[in-house]
Amino acid sequence: MAKKALEGIKVIDLTSALSGPFATMFFADYGAEVIKVEPLGGEQSRSWGPFLKKSGESNFYGNFNRNKKGVSLNLKTEKGLQMLYDLVKDADFFWENYRGGVTKRLKIDYDTIKQINPNIIYVSGSGFGTDSPISYRPCYDIVSQAMAGMLNLTGYPDQDPVKVGPSVADHVSGIYQAVGALIALHHRDKTGEGQFVDVAMFDTIFSLLENAVPDYTVDGVIDQRNGNIDPSIAPFDVYKVKDGFCAVGVGNDRLWAKFCNYIGKPELLEDERFKTNTLRCENYKSALRDVMQEWAGQYTKKELEDMMDEAGIPCGPVMDMKEVIEHPQTEARDLLLHVQHPIDGDVEVQGVVAKMSETPAEITTAAPMVGQDNKEVFGLTDEEARKLEEEGVISSTSSCKM
Amino acid sequence: MAKKALEGIKVIDLTSALSGPFATMFFADYGAEVIKVEPLGGEQSRSWGPFLKKSGESNFYGNFNRNKKGVSLNLKTEKGLQMLYDLVKDADFFWENYRGGVTKRLKIDYDTIKQINPNIIYVSGSGFGTDSPISYRPCYDIVSQAMAGMLNLTGYPDQDPVKVGPSVADHVSGIYQAVGALIALHHRDKTGEGQFVDVAMFDTIFSLLENAVPDYTVDGVIDQRNGNIDPSIAPFDVYKVKDGFCAVGVGNDRLWAKFCNYIGKPELLEDERFKTNTLRCENYKSALRDVMQEWAGQYTKKELEDMMDEAGIPCGPVMDMKEVIEHPQTEARDLLLHVQHPIDGDVEVQGVVAKMSETPAEITTAAPMVGQDNKEVFGLTDEEARKLEEEGVISSTSSCKM
Repeated sequence: MAKKALEGIKVIDLTSALSGPFATMFFADYGAEVIKVEPLGGEQSRSWGPFLKKSGESNFYGNFNRNKKGVSLNLKTEKGLQMLYDLVKDADFFWENYRGGVTKRLKIDYDTIKQINPNIIYVSGSGFGTDSPISYRPCYDIVSQAMAGMLNLTGYPDQDPVKVGPSVADHVSGIYQAVGALIALHHRDKTGEGQFVDVAMFDTIFSLLENAVPDYTVDGVIDQRNGNIDPSIAPFDVYKVKDGFCAVGVGNDRLWAKFCNYIGKPELLEDERFKTNTLRCENYKSALRDVMQEWAGQYTKKELEDMMDEAGIPCGPVMDMKEVIEHPQTEARDLLLHVQHPIDGDVEVQGVVAKMSETPAEITTAAPMVGQDNKEVFGLTDEEARKLEEEGVISSTSSCKM
Repeated sequence: MAKKALEGIKVIDLTSALSGPFATMFFADYGAEVIKVEPLGGEQSRSWGPFLKKSGESNFYGNFNRNKKGVSLNLKTEKGLQMLYDLVKDADFFWENYRGGVTKRLKIDYDTIKQINPNIIYVSGSGFGTDSPISYRPCYDIVSQAMAGMLNLTGYPDQDPVKVGPSVADHVSGIYQAVGALIALHHRDKTGEGQFVDVAMFDTIFSLLENAVPDYTVDGVIDQRNGNIDPSIAPFDVYKVKDGFCAVGVGNDRLWAKFCNYIGKPELLEDERFKTNTLRCENYKSALRDVMQEWAGQYTKKELEDMMDEAGIPCGPVMDMKEVIEHPQTEARDLLLHVQHPIDGDVEVQGVVAKMSETPAEITTAAPMVGQDNKEVFGLTDEEARKLEEEGVISSTSSCKM
């Protein structure tokens, strides 16, 4: 069995849905003990499809919560809250992604948790952060994409703005939570001191905006969406080919020469409109785009990709999910892994991104059923568990319907 | 002065452009000594705008390389390579984002560097990873968005696919590099052992695709782009308002009741087509969208946002860069910070996402000019530096034009 980098680290995980669970998933994948604490009946994302065929369990939940232990606890009872506090005593991390104000109401805010375990690292994921004028607001991924500028920068110039398809704010906020948590862990390894880590989806999206930020702060220019074009490189676009679309980028004059020769159009190199990257940018929409589209349109995705591969020009077909999942790269990089589910048997979940030579991530257990680990985590006998269940303190049945 | 979590950590940073520099930026921001090693004359992103008014230096480069030291070294000379090897001896990290095969050619691959410093953590960022059938290929952000499925999932169903505006693959790959590096650091803190960390932009994009993955692996459904809609929640969309666009999401039946009552249309609650979230999803495009659009269209962004804020419904205006940068949230969360540039004076750069209570990130120095720290880093006298410059081993002048 491979060494696990985060073995011995204990995470009390109050997060739900997406950003927090995605963050604690990394901890679980690299060997930490992540105890997911759900409300009675399970957290909301258990009711989000797609659902496994036999168990009816959510594969959405299943993906983000593999490798974790699961307990189901009613924090609104005194006993339940005390049981959580007991768990916190020897934990390394406390993690939550409620919206502003909720942890205080639930008596699980940083000040409270720190009383119980002064050196804990408390990670908070939210839409707007814990200290801003609008911290209290509910936030969906689409709201932060809209408010932090991503939505207006995505899409075609002559069409309405459009959001990034998948939930980029949730996911990337989760990755940032992991970054903050790991920096805090290094500090605690050195000094013993815990701290509070605060990550907001608004900030997350803002951090991805690249040139759009200095274009305004330095030049006063308000960037607008540009379709698939990069205004500072040409040709750099997505072209319609015989059986779909293909991205091609010719990043500099050296590549442009290579490209023109390879496609058998050396005369383009003599064209005054296309002599330099600056000129190609200026004349892209009026002239070069048509030249490129006419050339690309003669080929299939595969043909274009193979040619550009040979020529050493960055190029990639626009692939749909079937093509992506069946692509050799997906297998070569272990992007889909198998895990045994107690009811459904072999189930696929997403692999991990950071590949590590000595302490690789490993997926060993399927996501927990509701309250699956109540007895082990709280050290309960069957009788004690039954009694707590009757009292409405813990639960072991799902209230999430397919 | 605040404590710095990564103080004492030394990073030898061979990265250029975006994904690697974004990753090592986190290390520099939290206190590590990051020594950026550039080719003679500086790396490519120094020639990408916008440019500062007095110095003509790139603010693109400036943002991602603040807090770092800079040397400019010719690795193709024996002396230059040896000077790099000397730097590596007591470093904690070696970081690169060349495409596959280049580090071997430059004699700075993991096997070589490990000979010099067996416990180093070597981080590699690339388009397709170091061990895949297409590792050798050049890759731009748009190529990985295309090939890993993001591009085809973004845009409107009846229009062409479109890329995420900003370079999401580069940025997020950088954040993952930091995650892998920090996990490796914790392992080394415990055991003394270094390792190799390998992050690919293809894998990065794939990891963000959410339901599109299990929709295919579990249900065989090939998801298509959906504009601003979430197919499992309704209403959840972006609406055209008097002065722009606004995102509104009503995530469940409880919020729907709240929403209908708040907007003074309780009759919608009695409409058989809209009784449950499932029904609202089924009847969204045919009926509910028009109801929502008609309602939203009466208001401005500000009016809609204020109303939904009062009602507790997730909502956010689609903001352009001016609006984002001038929004109180941007100031409250320190998303733009000031740094003193030796020539330009006060310059703005992006703030950090993970806010930490005890070891906050801090921006203390502007990005280095080309070769700015040659003498300090290599321990050279003026005379030695001049000689090495004449020999073409180091440089202190930029070859990047505005």
